[in-house]
Amino acid sequence: MGYTIAEKIIKAHLVNGEMVKGTQIGLKIDQTLTQDATGTMAYLQLEALGVDQVKTERSVAYIDHNTLQSGFMNADDHKYIGTVAKKHGIYFSRPGNGICHQVHLERFGKPGKTLIGSDSHTPTCGGIGMFACGAGGFDVAVAMAGGAYHINMPKMVRINLVGQLKPWVSAKDIILKVLQMLTVKGGVGKVIEYGGEGVKHLSVPERATITNMGAELGATTSIFPSDETTKAFLKAQGREEDWVELKADDDAEYDEVYEIKLDELVPMVACPHSPDNVKTVAEEGQIKIDQVCIGSCTNSSLTDMMKVAAILKGKKVHPDVSLAIAPGSKQVLTMMAQMGILTDLIDAGARILESACGPCIGMGQSPKSAGVSLRTFNRNFLGRSGTADAQVYLLSPETAAYSALKGYLADPTELGDMPNFQVPEHFIINDNMIELPAAPEEADNVEVVKGPNIKPFPVASPLEQTIKAPAVLKVEDNITTDHIMPAGSKILPYRSNIPYLSQFCFEVCDPAFPERAKHAGSGIIVGGSNYGQGSSREHAALVPLYLGIKAVVTKSFARIHEANLINTGILPLTFADPADYDKIEQGDILELPNIKDAIANGTPITLVDKTKGISIPVNCNLDGRNREIILDGGLLNYLRSKM
Amino acid sequence: MGYTIAEKIIKAHLVNGEMVKGTQIGLKIDQTLTQDATGTMAYLQLEALGVDQVKTERSVAYIDHNTLQSGFMNADDHKYIGTVAKKHGIYFSRPGNGICHQVHLERFGKPGKTLIGSDSHTPTCGGIGMFACGAGGFDVAVAMAGGAYHINMPKMVRINLVGQLKPWVSAKDIILKVLQMLTVKGGVGKVIEYGGEGVKHLSVPERATITNMGAELGATTSIFPSDETTKAFLKAQGREEDWVELKADDDAEYDEVYEIKLDELVPMVACPHSPDNVKTVAEEGQIKIDQVCIGSCTNSSLTDMMKVAAILKGKKVHPDVSLAIAPGSKQVLTMMAQMGILTDLIDAGARILESACGPCIGMGQSPKSAGVSLRTFNRNFLGRSGTADAQVYLLSPETAAYSALKGYLADPTELGDMPNFQVPEHFIINDNMIELPAAPEEADNVEVVKGPNIKPFPVASPLEQTIKAPAVLKVEDNITTDHIMPAGSKILPYRSNIPYLSQFCFEVCDPAFPERAKHAGSGIIVGGSNYGQGSSREHAALVPLYLGIKAVVTKSFARIHEANLINTGILPLTFADPADYDKIEQGDILELPNIKDAIANGTPITLVDKTKGISIPVNCNLDGRNREIILDGGLLNYLRSKM
Repeated sequence: MGYTIAEKIIKAHLVNGEMVKGTQIGLKIDQTLTQDATGTMAYLQLEALGVDQVKTERSVAYIDHNTLQSGFMNADDHKYIGTVAKKHGIYFSRPGNGICHQVHLERFGKPGKTLIGSDSHTPTCGGIGMFACGAGGFDVAVAMAGGAYHINMPKMVRINLVGQLKPWVSAKDIILKVLQMLTVKGGVGKVIEYGGEGVKHLSVPERATITNMGAELGATTSIFPSDETTKAFLKAQGREEDWVELKADDDAEYDEVYEIKLDELVPMVACPHSPDNVKTVAEEGQIKIDQVCIGSCTNSSLTDMMKVAAILKGKKVHPDVSLAIAPGSKQVLTMMAQMGILTDLIDAGARILESACGPCIGMGQSPKSAGVSLRTFNRNFLGRSGTADAQVYLLSPETAAYSALKGYLADPTELGDMPNFQVPEHFIINDNMIELPAAPEEADNVEVVKGPNIKPFPVASPLEQTIKAPAVLKVEDNITTDHIMPAGSKILPYRSNIPYLSQFCFEVCDPAFPERAKHAGSGIIVGGSNYGQGSSREHAALVPLYLGIKAVVTKSFARIHEANLINTGILPLTFADPADYDKIEQGDILELPNIKDAIANGTPITLVDKTKGISIPVNCNLDGRNREIILDGGLLNYLRSKM
Repeated sequence: MGYTIAEKIIKAHLVNGEMVKGTQIGLKIDQTLTQDATGTMAYLQLEALGVDQVKTERSVAYIDHNTLQSGFMNADDHKYIGTVAKKHGIYFSRPGNGICHQVHLERFGKPGKTLIGSDSHTPTCGGIGMFACGAGGFDVAVAMAGGAYHINMPKMVRINLVGQLKPWVSAKDIILKVLQMLTVKGGVGKVIEYGGEGVKHLSVPERATITNMGAELGATTSIFPSDETTKAFLKAQGREEDWVELKADDDAEYDEVYEIKLDELVPMVACPHSPDNVKTVAEEGQIKIDQVCIGSCTNSSLTDMMKVAAILKGKKVHPDVSLAIAPGSKQVLTMMAQMGILTDLIDAGARILESACGPCIGMGQSPKSAGVSLRTFNRNFLGRSGTADAQVYLLSPETAAYSALKGYLADPTELGDMPNFQVPEHFIINDNMIELPAAPEEADNVEVVKGPNIKPFPVASPLEQTIKAPAVLKVEDNITTDHIMPAGSKILPYRSNIPYLSQFCFEVCDPAFPERAKHAGSGIIVGGSNYGQGSSREHAALVPLYLGIKAVVTKSFARIHEANLINTGILPLTFADPADYDKIEQGDILELPNIKDAIANGTPITLVDKTKGISIPVNCNLDGRNREIILDGGLLNYLRSKM
């Protein structure tokens, strides 16, 4: 039997377990990345592990989230990350150098290698055939320390791309189509592999758009073959030697197979407030708009910018529309300046923002009250833009740019013929905003600077014999980590400060939650299905831990968040019968009698609702290593016990 | 007897009073400008005045302060200002088009005309021979409504510039030298006029740097002659027809005359925390730095950027330094992109920010805790950067750029010879981010959009017969409007919301003040000399009014703030003997018996400290119109009583 692309990489990196689907495997990790909003915590954890020099082939610390710097907190974090990186053998990409995934694709990613990053859009590098996963910061810290990365062996999904996209229809429309087909839960426990002859018509940046937003499917990762197009891209980046060919065997077996006819695709749009609420632009109609934002790790490549510039050149942004553009990296920005397309954008009336995540994470450019905003980003969760009642639509750069001229959601295929947008044969390479780490023998001389914004993270206690605690919160299906631990410009600067952050935990759902949880002393959260989808932020586990949460009982979990709960030492449980979700009310006193023994022995677990006087069977999907981690009270305690 | 430049313009615009120094005069205003942080209030006031179409030759509403948009507030303000401008005959410069003073200089300012703006740096246009004053928003509203602008006839100061600047010494060093000579109080009640043969060596942007930062002298305004250099600049802006020659008569008389030998000047730096705490760069020494910021209305012209680019080209920003650059306008940014110098900046590792005020007003790019930041801006007041313990130095773009490479404060004259930086013969002109107002006959169809961030402003009551209130706050000399009503990214977005803002009034001096004042119900503030210096923000009067402040008693007032107090309906008083300042303690019960009659009749005023049992003579420097405004309870009541 042949192997899929992902299986080939997994096979070459397998250090624990067997490649049996659904069972836990441990992978050797070649590369890691962090961004600053999750990075401070990951490096505090790395320090707690007592590692001198990272053991990976390449680890890179990026600053791309907290770049507005409203207050001392961001610059304090940057300084901490810059110095801790220098000391421990980690490359440091300075603020202004660009978005982690865009820069990693340009300068570091390698086909056939494994990458984990403390950001859910790490699968971007799947666009060049990397096995790249979003992970909690602690998993990244462990990988830097040389430890394996543990996931459940995923199912394999194949999406065959057939034919060629019509002019002004683009990669974003492909992934929006996939989201429409599979939904935000459709990728859970799966790798999405792209194949078919349509692949050869897609450039690396286009492939990266698709693998990037595969995160919204809940997928473990997404991946493209590494082919001549990949080779040309790496050559243009001056690193042809990093190329290896990578393709699925002809007899590889997939659990699911889909086909998308590219020539039948039309411009798509994800409507408020979910990335899978997808319609065609034509179906949605000419809604009037207030704002257009172009950029983010999904759509900020040079080719994206070239297309946008071609649409805007010589035109004027509609008077009622604010158009903001954040190029993805210093390389993209430099080339835009040199090629003259930056001038085209400015001329048309675009607002040029620093190369960073920016408005995608609610870091500035919040729309007006009840404003309609079209964005080339990856998430349109309620409130994520920073404006609680904004209506955010996700779409391609082509649709965004054309709509910015029109003043309403408009179909760019009206533009007719399209010039041939080629990825350049040579990118401008200037890595002077990437600081190299100190030589290992110099590391002792590097002082790690921890400003007052950097606070210690909470550590759990070993699992109690019996957990008894109120259901301090009950929430619905599809709760995102943005619900659990909101981002945005007000809160993100405090990602290194768990006590401060805790005030905002579940603010979107129930602002009274933090006080109630603190008052209760210990608590259990009850959730619906796909609990913890979205961003990889470990803070969505660390902050509940700080607030006394002992367990979370749901219909189902999103992968990264479940791993973060385990690493943090919060027990993740699922209802044996999802209908039992309805039986529990917020405020009920719950008990997990003899839970420690049940976990240790793998015996059935019962959740007793003392208030209702009922017993509910729940599952705990933990095998060997994860079981030990939970028993020990989280990953740090587990690793210390192993040392 | 001949006239100075300022006197010629005053003479041509005099509509009230006589040109007798120290007495109130009323001037016809040709042009107005607002920025968004003060503009919402000015336009609410314009609406309150019931004016359909502005009566000025040109009024422009700029968006340049609140451009980060962290939350719905900013975009709500932008929408309000855009729609109210469109309805009432006002040009609207959209966010991203640049800093008001830079754009006004480029596109609207005219020699010989009068301009007032609701921003203290409005004297920038003095660089092309305009009589341009910073003013409270209400004064700007009245000017738009066709009313005169009232000031005290200023004294005339002449600064003769002799010789020519050495390479890499620049206009910023001239104004820093002037600040060292005259201090932040030295310009109060005066116009600073520049002359001498050295003027001809200064370009218009260089002159504008000097007149801009004349605001820090407390001057009424600063002004340069309009000469062939001015003509060439206006021609390069495609508006040669706006030029008129303007120079002082040979026998003009000045109250004070100074001379600066340009060829003896060296790079200067204003040290923390005042713009007049000036030393030479050599005197200050090679202090290690964390951040460099280049931009602001003081130093963001194309020629500034050309010099910076020449220094940075092919080099790398020091690893320990974050260099942020915000070009002053869309025009500057476009030309930088076209000329290739934007690429030079990006290449060197600079972070390119949107064309706006940005870090100058604490809107992002706050340094790290206790960070040292070199800035080409105009103010380094404690905490203004957004980091309470930051050390901010003000200096030229040349010194800033050179220091960014070195990692410490460094003298750019070490660079040796300097290329010849010429203002271009033709600027790129594209005003498509300036929206024209509706035709008057279409104005009724324009809907003014007031989002939830726009709240009504407080209006005072007519002056009471006797004021009795506690000294709710006692503060020192040189209190700035940044002390009274802080700016920064946390607070600035609420400039249209006085109730919300009031929580932060005097936060820097005494965070308990707002609660105490509210609790007291009414209060009197006791201040030292030069009270209310700095920014023109009317909020420094409106917010105290909201908190119940009836009077402010000081050793002396800064001009714009005193006018704002009067317009708001707060009584400004000064100690007859400044030594009496020491006799009052915070918390004392103060009384102004029969103050209404005393003001109305111009009879002596006594402040009784009931707690101490002492009487203190105070002055009220109000003549006819201001007296009536105070009696009526502020400008709005006064104007309504006239209608």
